[in-house]
Amino acid sequence: MRVFGIDCGTEVTGFGVVESCERGRDSALACRALGGIKLAKGKTLPERLEQVYRELSEAMAIWQPDVVAIEEVFYSVNAKSALKLGQVRGVALLAAACQGLAVAEYAPLKIKSSVVGYGLAAKDQVQFMVARLLGLAELPQPADAADALAIAICHIHTAQTLQMQGAGR
Amino acid sequence: MRVFGIDCGTEVTGFGVVESCERGRDSALACRALGGIKLAKGKTLPERLEQVYRELSEAMAIWQPDVVAIEEVFYSVNAKSALKLGQVRGVALLAAACQGLAVAEYAPLKIKSSVVGYGLAAKDQVQFMVARLLGLAELPQPADAADALAIAICHIHTAQTLQMQGAGR
Repeated sequence: MRVFGIDCGTEVTGFGVVESCERGRDSALACRALGGIKLAKGKTLPERLEQVYRELSEAMAIWQPDVVAIEEVFYSVNAKSALKLGQVRGVALLAAACQGLAVAEYAPLKIKSSVVGYGLAAKDQVQFMVARLLGLAELPQPADAADALAIAICHIHTAQTLQMQGAGR
Repeated sequence: MRVFGIDCGTEVTGFGVVESCERGRDSALACRALGGIKLAKGKTLPERLEQVYRELSEAMAIWQPDVVAIEEVFYSVNAKSALKLGQVRGVALLAAACQGLAVAEYAPLKIKSSVVGYGLAAKDQVQFMVARLLGLAELPQPADAADALAIAICHIHTAQTLQMQGAGR
């Protein structure tokens, strides 16, 4: 299974592609791609949204994931921030829909819990565990890409758990 | 000048195309198209966003406006509503950017003031004045399309005022 994780942000939108590779009854995870789309300064909002849409669409077309995973939004932010984030999230979801890809959403607590084993883990703990689970020699950069990889890993772990439950193990 | 107005909503996104026709020193306004994109039930959020994007893009391609006008968002809504609205607004702005169209934003007070002459006008007053300014026999339907037409009229009035100021009249 190949998962395209997206971490939407109003400054940088991170993405990462994670693949689960079956090895008999075990499976290993591998990072296939990661990146951060930094919004260019001096551009209008529509131009910035077009940049996010284009770069995500291009990466999805190259990596041909089975599914897209994205973070559910945390409503503790204020309305102004929520609107800004919503605009970026809207074009990210659109990019997935235009390529016919299903989208799975996960709450921040669930993502941290799935990667670190603790829902209130700090950002650097998440980065460390992402690097470890993916066998990376260094922490993934930019940090937004690490978050996107964590979301993708969360989807794979969730799918594996559901499969095991389905198999009655 | 042909203006494509958009009124984003989480249930219905209205649009309307208004053209200003010069008649010597006077100008008249005409409604060229209007419609409401009602989000289909039973679809996922990405599919709904794809619907808004596709229908707006198709209407822009048909009507070839000079500019797109959209309402600035009102931050009194809560964060959850702002996120939902932001997602729709993001794909609407993207549709304009992908067709190379400039986008102008107007505050709700400015739109009402420009159409009715009073910034705190009620919704039905706006609808009535939109119909009157465009020479329509009936109130524009759906109501979201009337709001989109009001935004487009606001852009034309603003552009005319700037032009008159520029000409020193």
